[in-house]
Formats: sequence, structure tokens, C-alpha cells
Amino acid sequence: MKITGAKVIDLRVPTSDDLLGSDPFHKAPDYSSAVLHLETDGGLRGVSVVFTVGAGTDWLCYGIKNLTTLIVGTTLEEFCQAPLKLYRRLIDHHQLRWLHDGVFRMACGAILNAMWDLWAKLEGKPLWKLLVDLEPQFVVGCIDWRNLKDALTPEEALEILDRASKKKAAREVELREVGLKAYCTAGWLGLSDEAILAAVRKLQNQGFDAFKVKVGLDCAADVARIKFMREAIGDEQSLMVDANQYWGVREAAEHIGYYLPFGLKWVEEPIARDDILGYLELSKTFSGQSMQFACGEHAASPVIFKQLLQSGAIGYCQIDAVRVAGVNDVMAIILMAAKFGVPVCPHGGGIGLCNMIQHFGMWDQIAVSGHSKTQLVEYIDFLQDSLKQPVKMKNGHYLAAHAPGWGLEFHEKFLEEHTFPSGKKWQDRPPLKRGVHFECETS
Amino acid sequence: MKITGAKVIDLRVPTSDDLLGSDPFHKAPDYSSAVLHLETDGGLRGVSVVFTVGAGTDWLCYGIKNLTTLIVGTTLEEFCQAPLKLYRRLIDHHQLRWLHDGVFRMACGAILNAMWDLWAKLEGKPLWKLLVDLEPQFVVGCIDWRNLKDALTPEEALEILDRASKKKAAREVELREVGLKAYCTAGWLGLSDEAILAAVRKLQNQGFDAFKVKVGLDCAADVARIKFMREAIGDEQSLMVDANQYWGVREAAEHIGYYLPFGLKWVEEPIARDDILGYLELSKTFSGQSMQFACGEHAASPVIFKQLLQSGAIGYCQIDAVRVAGVNDVMAIILMAAKFGVPVCPHGGGIGLCNMIQHFGMWDQIAVSGHSKTQLVEYIDFLQDSLKQPVKMKNGHYLAAHAPGWGLEFHEKFLEEHTFPSGKKWQDRPPLKRGVHFECETS
Repeated sequence: MKITGAKVIDLRVPTSDDLLGSDPFHKAPDYSSAVLHLETDGGLRGVSVVFTVGAGTDWLCYGIKNLTTLIVGTTLEEFCQAPLKLYRRLIDHHQLRWLHDGVFRMACGAILNAMWDLWAKLEGKPLWKLLVDLEPQFVVGCIDWRNLKDALTPEEALEILDRASKKKAAREVELREVGLKAYCTAGWLGLSDEAILAAVRKLQNQGFDAFKVKVGLDCAADVARIKFMREAIGDEQSLMVDANQYWGVREAAEHIGYYLPFGLKWVEEPIARDDILGYLELSKTFSGQSMQFACGEHAASPVIFKQLLQSGAIGYCQIDAVRVAGVNDVMAIILMAAKFGVPVCPHGGGIGLCNMIQHFGMWDQIAVSGHSKTQLVEYIDFLQDSLKQPVKMKNGHYLAAHAPGWGLEFHEKFLEEHTFPSGKKWQDRPPLKRGVHFECETS
Repeated sequence: MKITGAKVIDLRVPTSDDLLGSDPFHKAPDYSSAVLHLETDGGLRGVSVVFTVGAGTDWLCYGIKNLTTLIVGTTLEEFCQAPLKLYRRLIDHHQLRWLHDGVFRMACGAILNAMWDLWAKLEGKPLWKLLVDLEPQFVVGCIDWRNLKDALTPEEALEILDRASKKKAAREVELREVGLKAYCTAGWLGLSDEAILAAVRKLQNQGFDAFKVKVGLDCAADVARIKFMREAIGDEQSLMVDANQYWGVREAAEHIGYYLPFGLKWVEEPIARDDILGYLELSKTFSGQSMQFACGEHAASPVIFKQLLQSGAIGYCQIDAVRVAGVNDVMAIILMAAKFGVPVCPHGGGIGLCNMIQHFGMWDQIAVSGHSKTQLVEYIDFLQDSLKQPVKMKNGHYLAAHAPGWGLEFHEKFLEEHTFPSGKKWQDRPPLKRGVHFECETS
């Protein structure tokens, strides 16, 4: 099956009107995605999305479109035989690699993820099932080991996968029944305590028992909110906070000191995404506490994850489905997390992220770590009605996805109306709230 | 003075024909730049360049063009009063910041560097002189301290600058006479030993006594070349090697073990650009040696530099003029290097990089570290005739630049002929050697 063409859509949703998704840095995000459609001569369409928060989606669309010139004309079979070959053609392209992580690695991920989507559709399986069914040796062959071997060797990865594969069939049956345990982000910075509590009560009725709130700007207000939340949910349920990289290392230690009485499960992104030694210092400072540090949604490469994991700097590994170079990079990260015993708690939300990470959660809990004792998969009920295959939740768990591929097909009308800047939803908005000109005060 | 318009030019030079600039990853680079022209109503043009190695320059042009919409209409005076304000408008833009380092941070740097160019031109000073003349307190106010304070506080930075400013006038006189000591990269991977030796002899005749060769692919061949070079230049001159991130941590240690007899000054980029713990491990492994580790040309943010410097992982700090967000980020990095006593040895070559780094070298050696005992500024005599103000060398030293601003004005004919893909130089080339389709086998 040949890749015959590609289309990249700049999809933006004006979520900033409601301040949903807001945090200290991203004060008015418009949830957006660069959506890639790979067309084939076999009647299948490969789909991937790269989530962003508004302006800049066009940068990604530009890059992805540029990379598609490298794969139009190639066959799906070439990819399925050796996914690492395409990975290297992209990530190690002898000229493009100068562009590094960020836009470039994310664009490479868009291409790779769309190819994995096609493969899963060809086999008629949801992506998680395709991954679960791969031979351990094949998985190891999908990974770029160049910079990772000092933390995890291919032989160690093979051992981990071999060990899990003995219980794979039984684990799959279990997971198909129970699903993946999820947690919810409910306490957005822009919302009142009352609005948050209402959301939490609704979620508790749906079976959730783990909740995250945003912090960062004002220590006293944050502590008050954490206290409010802890009292509202009681001691038995899990409470986490997320500072979205707002602090330096010292401010983080200061703020977090005030959080200790409230039995937090984790503090997420207290500091910059690439400050490994900072995370290490924080984890040493608070080493006597049950609270751990969590990050990953902004970790720009497997090398950053390697260091966070091998050094013990983080206690929860928050893989993201679109920040690194697709399935291949995420496989490497999940395997490293398994070696170092760090639970994989993927980053959800955005547009389509929950739909993607459920596959990685399934693969981890069936075929890599092989258990479900410690992981929590983030769930945010944003924009699910824009997709033909919304995630299905039951008792606070993700139910196993059934649709072939990622399940990232959008309703045509939604795509059309939200295409930026031509779609109806954007034409109707005041010019100041469109694109790069829409600015917010940062501190 | 108002910014009235902006033009971004995709400038590419087909250097791959001669394999100049080649290394294990970048096997056939076409030296390129995204060139930004900011027009004003005051008769001045602000210029900056972002160097790349060919394909991908258009990604940067796209991003830079997009960011110019944020500054057209603003005034130079606003910028001169508080450069950090524009820095934050760009780097911390509440939606664009999602794009991270790489393309986004480099594009922000293009804007900032062009504004600094305008400011220096307004004052009729070369950029280094503008920087040298800034008040210490003002310099501290140009820096985004959020993620850096645990390594260097603003107060410590002020002390460093205050200490140096006592000798500033004398140092300026000295540096105007002698210039900045330079070293040369002569041993490109694609060249024969004889070709390299010929280049070295020519450079020695010009007064250079420090040379760098590329290594990485084949240990035995690398050792043979290092031995050949050491014998050719004798024991008194400096020899460095550069592996361009080709190895993992363990391969690096293995290869470097064979280099020990040859008295290398530094090993550059043995491992991945973001592997801080890997650098730390290597520096511990070889702690008894006089040889040190060097990196920075691919370090994507001041936070990466912070960790490399504060931990003692590197012995030489290779700032790059266009990888991070312009003068503001580089100021922070040079100040951190001064605190930790790590010599600043900027990354040169490319298109225009030498022209830019000479200003940072001057600022460091006059106004920050305040000495010239340990620094070496990279010099590669590439493409200098494309610029109206080529760097001037004497006795292996950079002579102080005199032209106002960066001195990055290209000859119009050069710009026109090398504009991609419309310029004559590209129209004349076979389609396979144009842009993203031009692929090289990677290993």
C-alpha cells in the first residue's frame, strides 16, 4: 500500500473564552492540533494529531507538510518491516536534524504516528493491540538506542518484554474488563473553588478518586485551595498539584514546603522542563516525604526522560503522545520507566491526547510493566464530542479502545468549522483573538 | 524609531559539493541562514541570521516571519529601555511557548538579535562596544532569571560585572590592540590527512596554534588522525577533537580512552546535546586527565547550560550565537560561565557565526570574566567574502570589529544568487540536491 498524498489541517478551538486549560503560563489557551491525514492507494487514511495551545499550530503544520515530501511515494509495507528506518530518515536527516527538538521532533512524531495508525488499521486492530502483539525482539528494533544504552540496554529491554509476555494474554483479558485507572484534572486556575468542587463531585459520582489542581502564582491561595480540595475529597482519595514549570528550583522548594501537610501524591512540573539537576535536588530535599515529583509532558526528548528516570529525580513518568517522535520514542521511554520502577502516568487532555495515551497505557500495563498497581492515566473530558470514537470511561477507568488505529477521526463538520483561520468559528471571532496577535500579560 | 516592516530570506550555499563542514551526522551540509531584515522609519536596517545546514531553513524563515507580526509597529526605544520585555513577549508568549526550544527559541533569537543590531547601529557602535558600555544593573535586567537563580543570583551577576568594570577601560584598550585569541577547525571528516595538514600549515603561518579535528565514526582511523595531527603540530600547540554527538555515553568513554596519550585540550560533543548526567559521568571518568569536555553549540536553552556549568560537567563553554534566544540568553550563559570559572569558547563557522561571536568574546573578556587567559574563540574561514564586513584576523587573533551593529550585511549579489530555491545557484543545480529531498544515508 502506497502513501499517495498528505493533508495537514490547522485545527483550533477557541477554548480561551472559558479559561479551560489555563495555568500560570498558558493563561488563555486555544486548544489546537496540527492534524495530519496520510492518504493511500489502499483505501485507508493514516491520521495523527499534534496538540498545541493555539498560535504556533501553523508552524507545526508547515513542518509536517514539509516532511510529508519524504514519505509520499513510499509504501506502508516498508514501514511495517522496519519502523526505525523511517524514524532515522526523519530524526537523523543529515540537514533537518539541526532543528532539534520542539517543532522538528514533534513534526517527525506526526509522520511516525500516522504511519503507525495506518499499520494498525491495515491489521484491523486498535493501536494498543498492534503494540501488544508485537514480538519483543521487534519492539527492541523499533528504538533508537544511540543515546539510551547507558541507562537501558537493548538486552535489558528484551528481558523486560519477555518477562511480561508470559502473562500478556491474561493481562489483556483483565484490562479489557476493568480498563485503565484514570485521574482527573479539575482545578483549573481560572475557576472558583465552588466550580472546582462541583466538577469533582460530578467526577466522584462517575467513579473517579484521584484529582489534580493547578498551582503556582500565589502560595497562600494555592495552599488554601489544596486544603479546600483535601477536605472536600477526604483522606482516602488522591490529590495532586501541577505548577506548569512556573517556579525556579528555590521557589519550588519554598512553595512545596507549605504543601506537605496535605498528603499530596505528586507535585507536577514544579520547575523547567529540562532542569534535570533541579528535579534531582528537589527530590533529595523532600526525600522523606511520600509525595513524589512528576513530569514529562514537556520533556522534549528520550534523553531528558532517561536522565529523570535513571537518577531517581521523578517518581511518576508522564509520557506525552505528541511531544517526542511518536510511538518509537514513547516505547523507549516506557521501557526505561519499567526498568527504574517508575509508574507511567501519561499526560492527557488537549485535543485527542486522551484518545492516544490510552493505547500507551494499555501497552505498558499489559506488555511492559505488566501490572496496574501504580499507574494513573490522566483524563480530561475536553472536546471528546469532536471525535467519532470518543474515549469510553467506566468507574473512573478508560475502557479498552476497539476502533482500528488511534481512533483519531474527527467529525467532518467539526474539522471544517474549526480550521484556522478560514473556518466559521474563527471568522466569527474578533480579529484580536485570532492567532499570534492574541497576547496575554506574562509575568 | 519605528519598526515598519520585515523581510526574511532563505539563504543557502551548496557547500555539500566540497564536504566542507561535514561530520558523522551532517554528512553533506549546505551552509544556510534564515536572514532577517527589520526595516525602520529611521533609515536603519536591523539584521540577524540563524545558521542551519540546509533543509529546514524554510521552517525557521516561516517562524521568524510569523514572529515579526508581533514587533512591526513597535519602536526601537521601547526595546532599548527594557530588552527583557520583548524577550518575554516572545519566549513566554502564552500560546507560542508550547513550541519550546529548537525552531521556536531560534526564531525568537532572530528577532531579538536584529533589535540589538538596530540599537548598536543607532549608537554607531559595534555590538560588543554597546554591550561593554551597558551598566551592570542594566545587564542584569536583560536576563530572564526564572530558571537560573539556583545557580547564579542576579546579585552575584551584579558582583561579577561590577568587579570587571573596574578594569573595563584598560581591558578594552588591550583587546583593541591584541584581539581575541582564536582556534581553527581544520580536520573535516571528508578530507584526507594531507589536505588537513596543508590547511594547518597555512594556518600556522597566519599565527594560529590551536586546532580541532572531527572524530566519531571509526576509532582506529580517528586515533591515527589524532596521532598524525599531534606529530604535525608538535607538543606545544593545542589539539582538540569534536565528535558531534555521535556516541552514547559508554562508546564515548571507550573511544576517548584511546585518545589519552595525545594531550588533547578538549573533547567536544562526545554525546547528546541534552545529556547532562552523561557529561557528568564522562567528566568523572576522566577526572585525572588534563583534557576537558566542551559543548554548547547545540545546547538548546540557558537551563541546559546552567546544569553543565554548575555541576562541573564541562570544562569549556561553547556558546552559540543563534541556538538560544539571542543576546539576552547568551548574556546569562556567559555570566554563569564566569561564576563557575569555565572559559567561554564560542562556536564559530557556519554563515556569519564568527562575525557574531566575536562580539560576545569581546564582552566576556572585557566586561565579564575580564581576562583572556583561557578562552579560545573558534574561527573557520568560511564564506567571509559573502559579507561586507568580514572578520579581520591577525596573528591568530580576531581584531576588534568596528562596523556598527553585528556587521552582518551580505553583499546584495550573494544574497540574491543564493536565495533558496529561486536564486541562480540553486536553479543551476540538479533537483535531487535541492532541499528536503536531498538525503544521505545515516547510520
